[in-house]
Amino acid sequence: MNFVEKLLTASRRQESLLCVGLDPEPGRLPASLRQEPVMSAIVRFCQDIIAATAPYACAFKPNLAFFEVLGPAGLQVFQEVVQAVPAHIPVIADAKRGDIGNTARAYAKTFFETYGCDAVTINPYMGRDSVAPFLEYRDKGTLLLCRTSNPGARDIQDLRVQDEGGTLRHLYEVVAQLVQSWNTAGNCGLVVGATYPEELRQIRAICAQMPILIPGIGAQGGDLEAAVQAGVDAQGELAIISSSRAILYASEGEDFAQAAAAEARRTRDQINAARQKKD
Amino acid sequence: MNFVEKLLTASRRQESLLCVGLDPEPGRLPASLRQEPVMSAIVRFCQDIIAATAPYACAFKPNLAFFEVLGPAGLQVFQEVVQAVPAHIPVIADAKRGDIGNTARAYAKTFFETYGCDAVTINPYMGRDSVAPFLEYRDKGTLLLCRTSNPGARDIQDLRVQDEGGTLRHLYEVVAQLVQSWNTAGNCGLVVGATYPEELRQIRAICAQMPILIPGIGAQGGDLEAAVQAGVDAQGELAIISSSRAILYASEGEDFAQAAAAEARRTRDQINAARQKKD
Repeated sequence: MNFVEKLLTASRRQESLLCVGLDPEPGRLPASLRQEPVMSAIVRFCQDIIAATAPYACAFKPNLAFFEVLGPAGLQVFQEVVQAVPAHIPVIADAKRGDIGNTARAYAKTFFETYGCDAVTINPYMGRDSVAPFLEYRDKGTLLLCRTSNPGARDIQDLRVQDEGGTLRHLYEVVAQLVQSWNTAGNCGLVVGATYPEELRQIRAICAQMPILIPGIGAQGGDLEAAVQAGVDAQGELAIISSSRAILYASEGEDFAQAAAAEARRTRDQINAARQKKD
Repeated sequence: MNFVEKLLTASRRQESLLCVGLDPEPGRLPASLRQEPVMSAIVRFCQDIIAATAPYACAFKPNLAFFEVLGPAGLQVFQEVVQAVPAHIPVIADAKRGDIGNTARAYAKTFFETYGCDAVTINPYMGRDSVAPFLEYRDKGTLLLCRTSNPGARDIQDLRVQDEGGTLRHLYEVVAQLVQSWNTAGNCGLVVGATYPEELRQIRAICAQMPILIPGIGAQGGDLEAAVQAGVDAQGELAIISSSRAILYASEGEDFAQAAAAEARRTRDQINAARQKKD
């Protein structure tokens, strides 16, 4: 089963487009876990969040930065967190890597073999040959940054570039077209922020059948309904709506996992309401 | 002492623009180390390479991919390798990260605090606010990918972009100008491949006083003399010419460290000959 099939299966089974982002910050752990050594507290925190929110999630997305900052032990934590995700739900390693052939091969092996993730986020700036080693894993997903959710996305991604026919288009549109041309094995996807629904709509028109990971709702303030309606494919699927902090830190009390589950369920239902409205 | 001062001090002391890239591959370790457990063999290999080549190097550049692929223990190896570099020589973490504010802060902390590196390579695609958390470390170096050494660099970096005045320029030129505008604290640098000396010359003209990390000589086949002459500043400095595999794997025998030292010395001298020819 390849990444898209695994994603669709989980998404249909859970009736969900919600991806739970795992960005654990030691300073924000619930009080009840602060007695434990920090590494095992983070593992426990993530395990409890995963178990509680799995019924409402189509994917989990651990962000590598929050594990790497813990030092070498943080990667052990990452490994345990990946293993805590139920086998039927895909894990997207949010790593945003990008490097040349030899090095890209090592990164692809890291995420797809060493840690056994189902998909990874990749930066397209270095071009086709920097992405090829990831695409060789035909059953895994390679999700290319296209139009990101932050204000600085404008600096480079919104530049007007001349396309092959001489027309001026935004760089993110040209990137979407490039990724479309790289997607011969059906294992590419895109990352497009929820904060720019109009750009998301344009990109969905270019890549009609690709999964699109959409961060930026919740703490980042993107308009959920607009993002869902712009991001889904013609069947109302293949949008992966990611929320991290709003779910992880829904409560600081001992009920953090139940609160996370309630928030995940609420968000999933909001997403589904937006999907139905579009029909 | 900030990154540029530390780099210049090491560069002048060693009369060298050579940066030794540390990309250890378990399958290419010298036979004499293959009896040992692989993690300690890699640490020993890197320690011996560092000690042997330090007299000829202005910097060391471990590439994170080759440590991450080893799993959690690989980051322990990375930490020991960083610590093995003599205190007067800067360590450039070749990580090519890039993410939004919250996450970028975690990456900056990872490389500058957790591992104590002097500089890090960063992907500019996500724009100014993704780079700002690195720039807040005023004594550390933030080296932005500009025009990379791989063939696929053409796909995106060579696109013709309309600049503010309406003129069409290559994206890499626009990136160089952006980074120039971000460099208010004098802690930015660029990464430009040795394989494209003409582009390197254009970029040096835009960023006259910035350190430029130049990979792509040696195994990647860039023309050393052309790269040195295009890459140095007006004083013949601030080019960081990086070579990895040609030095690391100069010999597979027990003499690997001496062979690496000889190759490093030879490359340093070649670089210096090219510098002098330019005068």
